Amino acid sequence: MATKKNATLKKVNPHTPAKKSERKDKPLILVTNDDGVTAPGIRALVEAMLPLGNVVVVAPDSPQSGMGHAITIDKPLRIKPIQLFEGVDTWQCTGTPVDCVKIAVDKILHRKPDLCVSGINHGANSSINVIYSGTMSAAMEAAIESIPAIGFSYLDYSFDADFNAAKRYANQIAKAVLANGLPEDTLLNVNFPKLPYAKIKGIKVCRQANGKYDEEFSERVDPRNTKYYWLTGKFAIKDHGEDTDEWALSQGYVSVVPTQFDLTAHHAITRLSTYF
Amino acid sequence: MATKKNATLKKVNPHTPAKKSERKDKPLILVTNDDGVTAPGIRALVEAMLPLGNVVVVAPDSPQSGMGHAITIDKPLRIKPIQLFEGVDTWQCTGTPVDCVKIAVDKILHRKPDLCVSGINHGANSSINVIYSGTMSAAMEAAIESIPAIGFSYLDYSFDADFNAAKRYANQIAKAVLANGLPEDTLLNVNFPKLPYAKIKGIKVCRQANGKYDEEFSERVDPRNTKYYWLTGKFAIKDHGEDTDEWALSQGYVSVVPTQFDLTAHHAITRLSTYF
Repeated sequence: MATKKNATLKKVNPHTPAKKSERKDKPLILVTNDDGVTAPGIRALVEAMLPLGNVVVVAPDSPQSGMGHAITIDKPLRIKPIQLFEGVDTWQCTGTPVDCVKIAVDKILHRKPDLCVSGINHGANSSINVIYSGTMSAAMEAAIESIPAIGFSYLDYSFDADFNAAKRYANQIAKAVLANGLPEDTLLNVNFPKLPYAKIKGIKVCRQANGKYDEEFSERVDPRNTKYYWLTGKFAIKDHGEDTDEWALSQGYVSVVPTQFDLTAHHAITRLSTYF
Repeated sequence: MATKKNATLKKVNPHTPAKKSERKDKPLILVTNDDGVTAPGIRALVEAMLPLGNVVVVAPDSPQSGMGHAITIDKPLRIKPIQLFEGVDTWQCTGTPVDCVKIAVDKILHRKPDLCVSGINHGANSSINVIYSGTMSAAMEAAIESIPAIGFSYLDYSFDADFNAAKRYANQIAKAVLANGLPEDTLLNVNFPKLPYAKIKGIKVCRQANGKYDEEFSERVDPRNTKYYWLTGKFAIKDHGEDTDEWALSQGYVSVVPTQFDLTAHHAITRLSTYF
């Protein structure tokens, strides 16, 4: 079996069993997430992408929420094919969401994908969540590789959330990005409100709301009488603009925030130059 | 001993043994890093900060390089006092650099610090490295908490690097920030060239250079004949502007990039609004 596994990896051309001629015309779509390859959200995303192109899944073999843009440098990575979605080459990886994108591009895919989608995350990645989110970091890594990329998140944390509306919008947004591309060095942060399709008012392109978490570590004592802490926090919005993702979601819209990996606070350069 | 530890933690006022009256006038400086509390870089930073205020250290108990903005949500955290720097309250934490800042603010410090400094990182965090860096994420977390924050990194990876020049500049930059503050919702990403003090030309305030890593996973076979991969990569600069951190460092300057956690690509909003 180990030999077979290696043989599979030698041909880095993992594709749907569709005819070759057919395949060539279709976009290649890389799907990943941070909740792990078996999460219902990634199944919903695969189903939303299948009408749009050839889908390849490379996702973490275990939940990786809150991993941010972590990469694995002190441990080796392993990848293993897994049968999960009919007709879709799927690989599970021992690394973080960002590792998945890196190894997909370098070792699994035979060419740069036309689109990378990440999610659908079980839970919001609007406002400051974008900073902590493995879902968004995977998409950002793809954008750094000059691959058009979208992170999708759903404001429903439950495992058996109804992804139907999210799927329809994910398909529509991905189709628009495949058709029009994205501005250079940007990706999209898409969040879906917890509403049925009929209740969603449409899509709003907006900016990241300024918010933060007020930490409230839960302090407990273990059986050896030593304290330990669970990280918890309450989201606090500081921003009441009507052009933000938080506002759009609160009003029943799908929020789309164009996002970038140039973190320079360009507006601050002049003032800071007077300091030194 | 467990009882004593808990008693220590109950009084969340970990301070230098200096006189109370003296302490009140001095700024409170939180020091953290991602290389772990025993790394030489954090010792250099503590020494650079001691003339400026009351220093408290809360840092990971093990190396956390490449952790990005990861937080620990599926495991509890522990904190333990450790004697490392004379007269400086020092805590080691089982979590990521971001966890360290969160738990310092919520559980260890008796008030919001006047400054949070992170580093001095063993290795560069210029250009796209800012995205992967635990050093910078710790500083960013402090900035999200409205604490003026600076991440310091040194372009020398070696354990026994000479931090003398870096210390002098870290002191100068921290002093300027304590005196003048920082523009709202920004932090500083500071990198030191690998040069002796006499050879450094000064400080340049600049923007993050556009660069990326070209992945080159090193493929190996374990004794069970299964492949595994080590993440490696070569830094590739796409940006030849003379206003970037990479350029400044290459010319022998200390680079200072004002950095923000609003990731919105504001310039892209108008174009994207036509998509939907």
